Amino acid sequence: MTDFDLELPTGGGSLLLAWQLKGKRVLIVGGGDVSSGRIKSVLAADAFITLIAPRDGLHRLTRHYIDNSARITYHDRTFAGDEDLVGIDMVLTAIDDVEWSRRICALCREHRIPVNVADIPPSCDFYFGSQIRKGPLQIMISTNGNGPKLANLLKTRIEQCLPEKVDRAIENVGILRGKLRQRAPGVGGEIGKRRMQWMSTVCTNWELDELAALDDESMEELLLVGWERLSVPKPPRRIQLNKASNMSDATLATVVGFFVGIALSTAVLWNQGIYGNFFTNIFMVLRALF
Amino acid sequence: MTDFDLELPTGGGSLLLAWQLKGKRVLIVGGGDVSSGRIKSVLAADAFITLIAPRDGLHRLTRHYIDNSARITYHDRTFAGDEDLVGIDMVLTAIDDVEWSRRICALCREHRIPVNVADIPPSCDFYFGSQIRKGPLQIMISTNGNGPKLANLLKTRIEQCLPEKVDRAIENVGILRGKLRQRAPGVGGEIGKRRMQWMSTVCTNWELDELAALDDESMEELLLVGWERLSVPKPPRRIQLNKASNMSDATLATVVGFFVGIALSTAVLWNQGIYGNFFTNIFMVLRALF
Repeated sequence: MTDFDLELPTGGGSLLLAWQLKGKRVLIVGGGDVSSGRIKSVLAADAFITLIAPRDGLHRLTRHYIDNSARITYHDRTFAGDEDLVGIDMVLTAIDDVEWSRRICALCREHRIPVNVADIPPSCDFYFGSQIRKGPLQIMISTNGNGPKLANLLKTRIEQCLPEKVDRAIENVGILRGKLRQRAPGVGGEIGKRRMQWMSTVCTNWELDELAALDDESMEELLLVGWERLSVPKPPRRIQLNKASNMSDATLATVVGFFVGIALSTAVLWNQGIYGNFFTNIFMVLRALF
Repeated sequence: MTDFDLELPTGGGSLLLAWQLKGKRVLIVGGGDVSSGRIKSVLAADAFITLIAPRDGLHRLTRHYIDNSARITYHDRTFAGDEDLVGIDMVLTAIDDVEWSRRICALCREHRIPVNVADIPPSCDFYFGSQIRKGPLQIMISTNGNGPKLANLLKTRIEQCLPEKVDRAIENVGILRGKLRQRAPGVGGEIGKRRMQWMSTVCTNWELDELAALDDESMEELLLVGWERLSVPKPPRRIQLNKASNMSDATLATVVGFFVGIALSTAVLWNQGIYGNFFTNIFMVLRALF
């Protein structure tokens, strides 16, 4: 335990959570631009949606979701009151009427239903942030209300630095965990700890691209050879990375610059009539080097 | 609207949220390793904590938090039942007793209190993910239960690709928004939209390092010159980035490789007795180029 660990955490943050909505019902009040975004996020979490919004104010995308998702129950009207909250597990509102927004929030608090009222922070039990979705991977970036635009810029930056096949790698690790749990069943305790440790070693010893290349056969092989002996073998040759092709951008740039330097140098000398042949020069430099 | 937008989102995800706990009370049951992590996250979100756990099983870090944070109310005993849930807004349990874990979860559901039971997914209203905290910036990485270890590896990767002064930049943008709201008050509507647009342009036109360099004086200046005319001026000279020093790694590598190439090329020629002077050659190449 370092001194750093012993510091009390700085306040002012939120508790970031991955809320589970599978089979739950979410009430969305309002059908505009913001609502269409909410519908998208909620559908991605496998929830059922009750949508209450007058048809004439529907955003094109909202209408599209209503027409195409069987998980949405749509009511062409405004919020009616208490009775609209029966059987509801979460409420998201995005309407322009501040008065009604606050009234819906008060009802939700009374019924202990988590609620988010767009644009009125004190009426929110939770905020949304910028989100990245790549298969089983989800990332949320929150600036705690300081700069939504900056969160969006950071989102782009983070997307760019994610390994290309990260989603495939995560899926495969999930499948491998499932197979391991079948092979060595039991909840918690010693066996749970051993499983966790072994999986962790696989994830550390194998490159992400190697994990992404796992198929059913190589998983069975890994479990057979690795788990039984409680060791983690190297990836089989056929899914091992070709490390040479994995040259970093900086290395590549150095090499390119290097050869351009040689080429230009000889070209200039040649131009000055000092030495006869461009290619002979490159050849001589290379021979002297290797 | 592109075709891509029209696709229904793929299911299987969670709804990522930034839960607000300021002034709320969180019950944590259990005092081990996992609990100490939970305490840390919950304190960072400004919550009050009721901690129920026998003293002899306390993790060193948990004990440290109990001794040093005024926000923790500690009870040296096991969970007693219903009465422990009075006035509680969220429950996190991390105990080895699976039976008791499930019983606590059932009570929470009865009282509609959000609950997370460590290691028993069906007893969780929400999961935690790997988290990054950098001042006002919070990032959560969730693999939706597929690979916690991979989430941790990605966390390190994302941390490395975050701009150095991102926290300072976000803080400053938050302060600037506050100042703007004072200068042009009003909730929602036209003024809200205009404020949002102007702030968004500032964040897009200025480099992150420039935002991080904002001080009180330059903010007032920016508001005076920019907001009044609804334009976003360039950053004042004194906080403008020295773009030359901002050369990317790849560019730098190319330049270095280039000069090494020239140097080696002439050195080899010189060594072959073909041309007299190393430095004269470099000079000639440079003169021919610029």
